Amino acid sequence: MKTAITPTRAENFNEWYQNLIVAADLAENAPVRGCMTIKPYGWAIWELMRDEMDRRIKAAGVLNANFPLLIPIDFFNREAEHVAGFAKEAAVVTHYRLKMIDGMLQPDPESKLNEPYIIRPTSETIIGEAMSRWVQSYRDLPLKLNQWVNVMRWEMRPRMFLRTSEFNWQEGHNVFATHEEANADARKMHKLYGDYMRDVLAIPSIRGEKTPEERFAGADHTYTLEHIMQDGKALQAGTSHDLGQHFAKSFGIQYLGADGKLQHAWTTSWGTSTRMMGSLFMVHSDDDGLVLPPMVAPYQVVVIPIARDDDTAALNAAADALGDKLRLNGIRVMVDTTDMRGADKMWKWIKRGVPLRVEIGARELADGTVTVTRRDLGKVSKQTISIDDFVASAGQMLRTIQDDMYQAAASRNEKMIQSVADLAELETKLSRGEIGFFRIKYDQTLNDAFDALQETYKISRRCLDDADPAYVFVAKSY
Amino acid sequence: MKTAITPTRAENFNEWYQNLIVAADLAENAPVRGCMTIKPYGWAIWELMRDEMDRRIKAAGVLNANFPLLIPIDFFNREAEHVAGFAKEAAVVTHYRLKMIDGMLQPDPESKLNEPYIIRPTSETIIGEAMSRWVQSYRDLPLKLNQWVNVMRWEMRPRMFLRTSEFNWQEGHNVFATHEEANADARKMHKLYGDYMRDVLAIPSIRGEKTPEERFAGADHTYTLEHIMQDGKALQAGTSHDLGQHFAKSFGIQYLGADGKLQHAWTTSWGTSTRMMGSLFMVHSDDDGLVLPPMVAPYQVVVIPIARDDDTAALNAAADALGDKLRLNGIRVMVDTTDMRGADKMWKWIKRGVPLRVEIGARELADGTVTVTRRDLGKVSKQTISIDDFVASAGQMLRTIQDDMYQAAASRNEKMIQSVADLAELETKLSRGEIGFFRIKYDQTLNDAFDALQETYKISRRCLDDADPAYVFVAKSY
Repeated sequence: MKTAITPTRAENFNEWYQNLIVAADLAENAPVRGCMTIKPYGWAIWELMRDEMDRRIKAAGVLNANFPLLIPIDFFNREAEHVAGFAKEAAVVTHYRLKMIDGMLQPDPESKLNEPYIIRPTSETIIGEAMSRWVQSYRDLPLKLNQWVNVMRWEMRPRMFLRTSEFNWQEGHNVFATHEEANADARKMHKLYGDYMRDVLAIPSIRGEKTPEERFAGADHTYTLEHIMQDGKALQAGTSHDLGQHFAKSFGIQYLGADGKLQHAWTTSWGTSTRMMGSLFMVHSDDDGLVLPPMVAPYQVVVIPIARDDDTAALNAAADALGDKLRLNGIRVMVDTTDMRGADKMWKWIKRGVPLRVEIGARELADGTVTVTRRDLGKVSKQTISIDDFVASAGQMLRTIQDDMYQAAASRNEKMIQSVADLAELETKLSRGEIGFFRIKYDQTLNDAFDALQETYKISRRCLDDADPAYVFVAKSY
Repeated sequence: MKTAITPTRAENFNEWYQNLIVAADLAENAPVRGCMTIKPYGWAIWELMRDEMDRRIKAAGVLNANFPLLIPIDFFNREAEHVAGFAKEAAVVTHYRLKMIDGMLQPDPESKLNEPYIIRPTSETIIGEAMSRWVQSYRDLPLKLNQWVNVMRWEMRPRMFLRTSEFNWQEGHNVFATHEEANADARKMHKLYGDYMRDVLAIPSIRGEKTPEERFAGADHTYTLEHIMQDGKALQAGTSHDLGQHFAKSFGIQYLGADGKLQHAWTTSWGTSTRMMGSLFMVHSDDDGLVLPPMVAPYQVVVIPIARDDDTAALNAAADALGDKLRLNGIRVMVDTTDMRGADKMWKWIKRGVPLRVEIGARELADGTVTVTRRDLGKVSKQTISIDDFVASAGQMLRTIQDDMYQAAASRNEKMIQSVADLAELETKLSRGEIGFFRIKYDQTLNDAFDALQETYKISRRCLDDADPAYVFVAKSY
């Protein structure tokens, strides 16, 4: 059977992913090393994802703000683990002017900064410095802040949406009076993320704590959301960190308690990024292109008039009328009345993953019907129903698609997770090319033999099993 | 009379502005040269401004996308006027790694980039490069793109919101087949901006074309929106540029016409930024603090229970109930039940410019009334009305405030504009300390005597008079 994307997932998953992005017109590599340009269709998906996440973050009592892009090296240098984690991928601003020298536009030596800045890889430091001034008394706590910004981590092996030198994200930074509150909040945001991924992206997450080896640079606890791609690899889709007093001590975030004593506060940070889009695309899509859950589909329904002879005007009018009715019900609709051939329009919107595809041809027009196909199920779901029934049931059909897509991903996840008794069994399975998540006793991974497996098979500890933290999930990853 | 902000506007407008920003908790100078941190209350205003602008831009058929932060110097260098305009304020990224050298964290010499990047001061170049690939045929036109991003122009004399090295903005970039379409579109977006400023920000704009001396670097025509501050100075609040074929030729943006001929396209760009917030604050605010038009007020109504003795619980409950009723009518409400003194709460929200202030004390609670005061009019507007009447009329009261604030600004503008016959009269008025916009024959400004006046009095040509482009408006400016 001919597919819209070649190679197929089974043939070459990585190449399929690159071609999927082109076929759905989501993004392209930018002429800036490691960076991408997110094209309008991709950005429209991100806006839907972002706006819903933003609503949920605000509902959690968090206030948005905006901190500077540049971070003084001195700030960055104050927390030792943090520096160790990010110094090797920091873009550095050293001059503030260009000058034509020897016929070439170059940094003006006279504009060299005494103290260079780095472009934020994350903002714990610059926000920590602000918090040290904003927090004075226990009355100022908790303080919960978030920002939607771009960050930069110089990437040697970039992949669109998964790893790019610049990416867009939200980063939340909260301060509390006690460790209990901070840790509870880190877990709360972890849950918020997992629920969002389930309800909005239709993606089940493996939710658990990172092992000490895999924590965020400067955290006491890192809680992660791990997604399983169709090729069995893990994708870390979001993290929430209990930072203990690392940053409170480095930046002097102190408060006067109700007891009159000055003490260090406790902070958390939590973030999700455009990386989630990579997961969204790799979890749901198929060999014909993107498959979008209705909640984040820029168009939830596409209406395609299939003209034969001289019926174009009548069919376009019927399609427009249907579009208007659906929009009144709050559905996002594309009515494609361009002069492409019907089959070409169909493929265009299949590749772009529109959840419901509606065809109106001469027969439908005469009968007052439409032919409706679900993108997630394809041809088997094709049905011809009356226009009125479709208008009345489209909202429910979209909710069903959303649920079914989650269930499909969850069922696949189940098959992708297996337990192994020890490293020997793990190695046997890996050497046979088995894919997915392997659940193993954490203490088994604390020796050289595991390090050797990591090296050979490019696996890593993804997170501890929330149900029993003596176990850890191990997998290859993006 | 004691005012919340000292000095007053009349005493020292610039200092008043700085203190206003502190009093209303909008922003602060960041520990990064020339940059600011926008605090939650300021950012909430920006989100309202941004979201409404975004709706209007999308309604104009524009698609949002996202282009890289960094621009290769080579791109930047392709349009000569553009380079001349921005090279002197470009932040330059020269390294991609930090390293501890002699005990100091420094740019790693081994990570030096062969081709440095600049942080975008604006994105005509990087978007032009993309357009040269995205536009192939006349069928691809018009192409209308926008992005909401941060940009950087190194600023030697920063002032919060007005001039900061980093700022947030939207930049639109459109491509057309013909010059007529491009120019019409530049004017259309200019009108969209002016209407937005009138309807949303309640600010009247002087709308006109920049003289050739004041154009954007690389534009054939620049259309500007000039606002008049309360001290008579101009603030450029938005611009729309007809870029002719400057960027189309520099980046090879060509299309195959319906006639089968390959030809260069015509581009426009148009932008508004957080700078508009500076105008919003300086146009409407008074000596007691911020005065916000309801459309961009994070809280349109603040409900303040004024407790005396043991009635706190009953008053708080009544205040909460009123808040809920107003919210059901789509009004953004703050119910301030914190344990501050009533007078302190009042001043807090006066300084933050909430359009309607509602007090509920023991007498109101007994009578089923509330005492309502408009922020823009102050005490003279204070009235006690029944809760039901207030709930029923609050929406209309807010619309009236919005309209009245526009009218007040428009009336002041009228008094701030005067015509002068020649340079001698202009100099006389300037030397007497007269403030505002001076309308003068444009050709009068094309000689050395005007240059001397510019230098002495820090005036500049703001824009040509749309009603008669033989005249130009001249003013001091931010």
